[in-house]
Amino acid sequence: MTYMSRIEAPIVGLTVPAEIGMSIDEVSTPALIVDLDAFERNVARMKAFIEHNGLRLRAHAKTHKSADIALYQMGEGGACGVCCQKVAEAEGLVAAGVTDVLVSNEVVDPKKIDRLARMAAKARVLVCVDDLGNVDDLSAAAVKHGVTLECLVEIDVGAGRCGVQPGEAAVAIAKKIDAAPGLTFSGLQAYQGAAQHVPDFGERKAKIDAAIGMVKDTVDLLTTEGLDCAIVGGAGTGSYYFEGTSGVYNELQCGSYIFMDADYQRVKDDTGAFITDFENSLFILTSVMSHTKADKAICDAGLKAQSVDSGLPTVFGRDDVTYIKCSDEHGVIADPDGVLKLNDKLKLVPGHCDPTCNVHDWYVGVRNGTVECLWPVTSRGLAY
Amino acid sequence: MTYMSRIEAPIVGLTVPAEIGMSIDEVSTPALIVDLDAFERNVARMKAFIEHNGLRLRAHAKTHKSADIALYQMGEGGACGVCCQKVAEAEGLVAAGVTDVLVSNEVVDPKKIDRLARMAAKARVLVCVDDLGNVDDLSAAAVKHGVTLECLVEIDVGAGRCGVQPGEAAVAIAKKIDAAPGLTFSGLQAYQGAAQHVPDFGERKAKIDAAIGMVKDTVDLLTTEGLDCAIVGGAGTGSYYFEGTSGVYNELQCGSYIFMDADYQRVKDDTGAFITDFENSLFILTSVMSHTKADKAICDAGLKAQSVDSGLPTVFGRDDVTYIKCSDEHGVIADPDGVLKLNDKLKLVPGHCDPTCNVHDWYVGVRNGTVECLWPVTSRGLAY
Repeated sequence: MTYMSRIEAPIVGLTVPAEIGMSIDEVSTPALIVDLDAFERNVARMKAFIEHNGLRLRAHAKTHKSADIALYQMGEGGACGVCCQKVAEAEGLVAAGVTDVLVSNEVVDPKKIDRLARMAAKARVLVCVDDLGNVDDLSAAAVKHGVTLECLVEIDVGAGRCGVQPGEAAVAIAKKIDAAPGLTFSGLQAYQGAAQHVPDFGERKAKIDAAIGMVKDTVDLLTTEGLDCAIVGGAGTGSYYFEGTSGVYNELQCGSYIFMDADYQRVKDDTGAFITDFENSLFILTSVMSHTKADKAICDAGLKAQSVDSGLPTVFGRDDVTYIKCSDEHGVIADPDGVLKLNDKLKLVPGHCDPTCNVHDWYVGVRNGTVECLWPVTSRGLAY
Repeated sequence: MTYMSRIEAPIVGLTVPAEIGMSIDEVSTPALIVDLDAFERNVARMKAFIEHNGLRLRAHAKTHKSADIALYQMGEGGACGVCCQKVAEAEGLVAAGVTDVLVSNEVVDPKKIDRLARMAAKARVLVCVDDLGNVDDLSAAAVKHGVTLECLVEIDVGAGRCGVQPGEAAVAIAKKIDAAPGLTFSGLQAYQGAAQHVPDFGERKAKIDAAIGMVKDTVDLLTTEGLDCAIVGGAGTGSYYFEGTSGVYNELQCGSYIFMDADYQRVKDDTGAFITDFENSLFILTSVMSHTKADKAICDAGLKAQSVDSGLPTVFGRDDVTYIKCSDEHGVIADPDGVLKLNDKLKLVPGHCDPTCNVHDWYVGVRNGTVECLWPVTSRGLAY
């Protein structure tokens, strides 16, 4: 049997969950809602932090994958550019007008390297490197397309993921980049991802202090070799105040600060309270769709409306009902007092914002209870 | 500040992960791969089972959300129609040519009820009901649009989710449906979702035996009231052989059988072995993108390429490497013997197929190592 290909078929756009001007109560659920006032306050808070500390912000677009949000961060939000995590994610944003992108990841596939170099004809493009052979491949593609690729050497500062060891291994790659046609050595990528969600302040600080030490030593070593780090980049929403006041990092890569999530609410500040800098601005709007048991309601947001890798969502502004179980298409809401009725709406704070945004096609921007905008999740599905 | 809406912006289609005719080794990763031979054997096995047992198959399209697959199931696969879990999911498939859809869920939102009724002008549409008031609303919409909505009364046979109690509560709703203009009482929805993934055969069988008893009693009670159940529907891939040989159920709603996943591999048959009826046909193709530690490789499939709600993926056909950790965009592969190199491809068996398909835009159909088709995940993102 042979199959017809339906690549011409519409994938999205048959319907949208909301229309501009409608009340939030009219939005079809489940839908991803952005509280625009809270979102804008979060963006302003981070802008004030980077200005106060003389830093650059390269906001991480992997959180939202949205051209609208990226352009807002680069406009009102004071960001010099964005990070993306995949070439296709960056292609989506560049096609929509974003002009400065770091692919904060290694790109080693020959076809992706070629696409990366082609993209550099349309935007400033930076990329991370942790392999000597990769330098040759990136250089060849940059030369072929007549572009410059700016390279950051990624060092592993404790996350145990990508990146070479700090020190000599990083210097060896930096030297090779510096000598390679079509490439510029632009500095270091030093993201301690494993520290971001450590709840305890002291433990989190210790991990980042260790990272800062490794970065400083490597920057110093590079300097003695005549290689300047224009960019020393890293940091996330759970740790940015450490890197941002270190005097070592100069470009922060926070993403979640615009939205926050239930897991980040478990990350404490130095008083033992939740990190209070940022507010929840991202919610999964869900409706009660079945209520046949007195103390239990079923809502329409399950595994396909969110990621539960970092725990279940919380119900925003409610202490009388609790989201207790998640299956593919349903959530079970404990409703001990039987207060919920069919079609009641709840705002869920997702357990983990990034992979939750990744399952939606639209952000529904709401202000004062009214839908103000619809933003597509521009680079959704563009993971390759 | 006011926002421009970018609803005109392209969301998908900038690039696709593969081209027809290319080798699987050329597919851009991460990508969802379907082994077409294994897929077709799975479809044929289920067809043989339903034919042997004189049943109907209403394949669950929530697994794949693909019009191509739905139409193949209704053609070669012997299915009478499909199930969808959301109105928009069904709209996507009906727009692409699917003619017979059960929304195996309650639809209580007024706008969704209206869309459901409008869809019934284009296809046979069935829906589940567990609330008396909902009958009035469905009836009004059917009358308004001059269509018939076929209704199944959903009973809770142990899953603890939607559905009224078996027995009198179900009869009350069935009677009301039977008397309502625009509605047809078509039978019972009795899906025991909580039993599907119970690994132990005896424990799983006991749960389904209990469900079968409740269904039988309710069917008998309805019969004494003069209400025939044309459809007694339910069952999933973990339990279909119990319902399918019960003499009580007549329409099976299996979904995962076409693909299988790592979690279903933990579900044992009566010999204590894995369920051997179906093969893994769905894989996440991933590439090694960093390998700076001797015993650990980093691949490009993380949380945004799969759902880990039911555990991490396994590496298909390999016992020398293991997927041990998943973050947003990366997977950590234990590679104790250091056998992996940059750009090596691995085929991951997802922990849970349904929510994994939900994060991809394309299925890449492969036969004998060559890409044969590209199927869009038609109703991806259409959850409302």
